Amino acid sequence: MRSDHPTRRDFVRTAALATGASLLRVPPAQPARPLGVALVGLGSLSTNQIAPALAKTKYCRLAGIVTGTPAKAAAWKARYGIPDRSVYDYATMGRMADDRTIDIVYVVTPNALHAEHTIAAARAGKHVLCEKPMEVSVAQCDAMIAACRAAGRQLAIGYRCRFEPHHLECARLARERAFGEVRMIEAGFGFQIGDPTQWRLTRALAGGGPLMDVGIYALQSARMLTGEEPTLVTAVSTTTDPVKFRDVEESMTWELKFPGGVIAHCGTTYKVNGMNRYTAFAERGSFGMTPAYNYDGNRGWRSDGRELRFDEVDQFATELDDFAQCILTGRPTRVPGEEGRRDVRLLMAIYEAARTGRAVSVG
Amino acid sequence: MRSDHPTRRDFVRTAALATGASLLRVPPAQPARPLGVALVGLGSLSTNQIAPALAKTKYCRLAGIVTGTPAKAAAWKARYGIPDRSVYDYATMGRMADDRTIDIVYVVTPNALHAEHTIAAARAGKHVLCEKPMEVSVAQCDAMIAACRAAGRQLAIGYRCRFEPHHLECARLARERAFGEVRMIEAGFGFQIGDPTQWRLTRALAGGGPLMDVGIYALQSARMLTGEEPTLVTAVSTTTDPVKFRDVEESMTWELKFPGGVIAHCGTTYKVNGMNRYTAFAERGSFGMTPAYNYDGNRGWRSDGRELRFDEVDQFATELDDFAQCILTGRPTRVPGEEGRRDVRLLMAIYEAARTGRAVSVG
Repeated sequence: MRSDHPTRRDFVRTAALATGASLLRVPPAQPARPLGVALVGLGSLSTNQIAPALAKTKYCRLAGIVTGTPAKAAAWKARYGIPDRSVYDYATMGRMADDRTIDIVYVVTPNALHAEHTIAAARAGKHVLCEKPMEVSVAQCDAMIAACRAAGRQLAIGYRCRFEPHHLECARLARERAFGEVRMIEAGFGFQIGDPTQWRLTRALAGGGPLMDVGIYALQSARMLTGEEPTLVTAVSTTTDPVKFRDVEESMTWELKFPGGVIAHCGTTYKVNGMNRYTAFAERGSFGMTPAYNYDGNRGWRSDGRELRFDEVDQFATELDDFAQCILTGRPTRVPGEEGRRDVRLLMAIYEAARTGRAVSVG
Repeated sequence: MRSDHPTRRDFVRTAALATGASLLRVPPAQPARPLGVALVGLGSLSTNQIAPALAKTKYCRLAGIVTGTPAKAAAWKARYGIPDRSVYDYATMGRMADDRTIDIVYVVTPNALHAEHTIAAARAGKHVLCEKPMEVSVAQCDAMIAACRAAGRQLAIGYRCRFEPHHLECARLARERAFGEVRMIEAGFGFQIGDPTQWRLTRALAGGGPLMDVGIYALQSARMLTGEEPTLVTAVSTTTDPVKFRDVEESMTWELKFPGGVIAHCGTTYKVNGMNRYTAFAERGSFGMTPAYNYDGNRGWRSDGRELRFDEVDQFATELDDFAQCILTGRPTRVPGEEGRRDVRLLMAIYEAARTGRAVSVG
């Protein structure tokens, strides 16, 4: 396996350990031109995070856009110099098959549209990077994986924390038993949601509430720290504002039992500000991140007081460059569709557990 | 209601707010002599915490001991100047009825002996302070309450955190919505247990594992912060060392749903060092304690950076002096047997949820 992280030395070392790659650095593949990325969905994530991140990548560039809003198309064309032929709407995505400036389609639309847009991109012969959660059902995930496989294209899910050095270091501490075996994990991510009309509060588009949107980060942390798949799930959900939250849960907690003996207890909510952290409790000490899930400014800590600190990386730029290297070298991504599907299956089990009041076996 | 805290001004104010007492200070009742306390069970808690705390009380003194170990009796007699007539074993506790130097019996024996020793003390006409958990079944709790009621004596449970100023201040922040409504609570208390032969690992004496012993603190925090009783409980338990933990669980997590919309997710374990904290996540910020459950050195925090710090109090001395004032003035204790029974009922529901894989209704 090749070391593929063209960033700082500490991060390369951490990432290499985290992926089991050799410490021997192999130079990354140098493309003749940056890979062209088309963004599908020009909401705040694309606007405020992904477009600026693209400008920081080494192997990618913003080459196209897909939007249903003509005013957004005009603004993005002007700002990023995107040619008319690389501006699409959702009905014309198929034309991308003839657009050789686009190599990667980054799907940033509402959750329940991910399959439609991923499949359209794959059929147009593009590699696909799709935001989390992958979709709102396992069947949709299967369809996405099948479409990309049939097209011979890679599919990656936007798990930015898998490229964040503090997360990777905490996973290493767990895996290498730096404080003995991890026995319990506490993780939570929530925020106070604003605009009541946004798609995140509509089940048909979001598939659920904060669990789908940000709870998935806590779920990922538990799986990343244990390196295992849980066998049992319980959950409790609650809603105090049945007007705003008439369609999706307001808050949710859940427990995950892992085969190696770890239990994780997690929370998510659209009703508080500042729930954003995880802790791994191990036999001889603990470690974690507070905050854990921000775009920047995350901080790690260890109970022995030793520093757990790395220079900031742009998580989106790192994820994009990693995917570009996967495409250039044929190496599989560390965040494939199968990984996204695992989380969606667990998210559905968490909802089932909350709905039925039963522990759901997922082993 | 009288303000009954003869300690520092800040603490009095906090405690007064916490109990709804008037800020007008009424001088505490001054007994003609300190109330005599007999300790039942001379293990490490009595030796290292309670006996030293008794020396710091204003209204109590160590007047008697009950132990099944003659060597301990001799050592304590010598150290604390306890007269022969106030030294008992478990078979001779009934003689206490004639011992007018003893007013309060503090039961510090293994959990499953609490009813036997509480009932014996009540029948001897003594008020009883009993360590947590109150007992290992609701039926035993009922028997204890009935015995003390029949004897016309008060029964208090040793919930020291109910007398700790940081805990009281966090409860005030929740109750007064200092950061808006609390929506989620995370709490955990666990430690790495040593000696595999100790009674805490024997179900017949402990009634369970870390949940009974230290998980109860996290449960108390959730109830204290919400001021409510939960309606639904889920739980997951795990054991990785089936030799040491052949009789009780090794680790446990649980969720509590409260009628006002709070969910608490909690953990306890005998397998890690340093799990000892809680956090209340509210609409506009968070607050909590890390560590939360130590005998001293607990620290509070608030997300707005404002100080949450009080001078150290000896939790056992404060609890003992409060109980003495209850007896002297006829005021009911804030930690009656009924409160202990509530927790035992919930602890049993948590075990049932873990055993059956079902959410247990406790409303």
